[in-house]
Amino acid sequence: MNLLLLEPEDFLPDGTAQVSGRRFRQLHEVIKAVPGKLCKAGVVNGPIGSAEILSMDRDEAHLRFEAHGAPPPPLNVVLLCALPRPLTFAKVIHSAVTCGVKDIHFFHSAKVEKSYWQSSKLTPEAIRGEVTLALEQCGDTVPPRIGFHRRFRSFVEDEVPQLVPDNASLLFGSPGASEPVPVGAAIGVPVVLAVGPEGGFNDFEEQLWQSSGFRAVSLGRRILRSEFAVNALLTLLGAVQNADAVERRRD
Amino acid sequence: MNLLLLEPEDFLPDGTAQVSGRRFRQLHEVIKAVPGKLCKAGVVNGPIGSAEILSMDRDEAHLRFEAHGAPPPPLNVVLLCALPRPLTFAKVIHSAVTCGVKDIHFFHSAKVEKSYWQSSKLTPEAIRGEVTLALEQCGDTVPPRIGFHRRFRSFVEDEVPQLVPDNASLLFGSPGASEPVPVGAAIGVPVVLAVGPEGGFNDFEEQLWQSSGFRAVSLGRRILRSEFAVNALLTLLGAVQNADAVERRRD
Repeated sequence: MNLLLLEPEDFLPDGTAQVSGRRFRQLHEVIKAVPGKLCKAGVVNGPIGSAEILSMDRDEAHLRFEAHGAPPPPLNVVLLCALPRPLTFAKVIHSAVTCGVKDIHFFHSAKVEKSYWQSSKLTPEAIRGEVTLALEQCGDTVPPRIGFHRRFRSFVEDEVPQLVPDNASLLFGSPGASEPVPVGAAIGVPVVLAVGPEGGFNDFEEQLWQSSGFRAVSLGRRILRSEFAVNALLTLLGAVQNADAVERRRD
Repeated sequence: MNLLLLEPEDFLPDGTAQVSGRRFRQLHEVIKAVPGKLCKAGVVNGPIGSAEILSMDRDEAHLRFEAHGAPPPPLNVVLLCALPRPLTFAKVIHSAVTCGVKDIHFFHSAKVEKSYWQSSKLTPEAIRGEVTLALEQCGDTVPPRIGFHRRFRSFVEDEVPQLVPDNASLLFGSPGASEPVPVGAAIGVPVVLAVGPEGGFNDFEEQLWQSSGFRAVSLGRRILRSEFAVNALLTLLGAVQNADAVERRRD
């Protein structure tokens, strides 16, 4: 927990806040919070700042939050992701949220097993838990919008156009594509990125992306697990380019 | 398993090969291998190619391997990583191996708990298992060299200089650094990259890296879990830069 995430309901009428449960245990056991100590904190959908510990009771921490600034800027990417297997789903959420994505849509695809849609990992409560952990990890306060779309074709043809911001670059991951992922493509302009399931999109699906204006891009020959592929794609799209600054020789 | 990794001892005198155990179960249950089917395969430290299934017995697959080419090129990065907590250790190995690193060194650091060094995840057998899974994931055949170094100062001062290739760029991750990770820095020239523990290097450690010729670089404001930070750093260092090719407008 690199940031204590406070919910509106944690605040008392006098402006101080109280946390219990998992967050209390993290403060107590990991952060070793004691009265007077400051820790990094933030308010859901609000500013980040610091929390001064006022008291640590048996199962509750009492603290005073002071806002210092805005959360980190979002990554300008709309992520469209074929629904992963349940254990991977949580990791993909983590990966996308920690990279700063604010708009995530999961969709069905030929190589997605139908049973994945029944997973208990897809309940709003389970998702909210994963999102909170990811925001606490990366030091952000703004949860993403997360949508689910169970019909591939109507998703791509009817729903995706409504998710595309003006002037966006449209990309889909395809391991065999000749074009590498464009570094820094999401700096300045938005990107809509579609990521396939394990095993990739089938030919029909690739053609539908292409006829919908999406360009195939690849991470290279190495095939990464879904959560790492998402992390790598998002990292590249948001990367600041400064390779010219690299020293080419050791001193 | 995107590649069936064959060991020299899998081969019979007639040049065919037999696999059992975990790999047989993967062939049977995931790849649905039947006689005549081809699957991607490779030989440890050797070529990649295809394996034709000759027969599937109750607990053993018999197959013929045919070499088609070289494994993917390595990533030109020597990774120096503070020893992570045991569950994260395996994920960091996975992340580094799937990105193509061939030289990984784990070291002690002030914020590494001493108990981590006693973990059962650090046995040669456990490591070999993780490396095999990662090579099978990314379609590579060449395991990395993995070293362990329990004294920080003598590691940095005495051992690291022997690990540094000629003309290498020397970098260490520091969330507060003003310089972003240089994109594509490992294309053409080698990079030696040092990654700190959860909580980062302390001041003494940062100074020792700097006085040893290492430059501080940052992934930005967001703090990623160790395995994702390693994945992001390696992805950027090895990235092909083609941002000029990005279409700035939708068609």
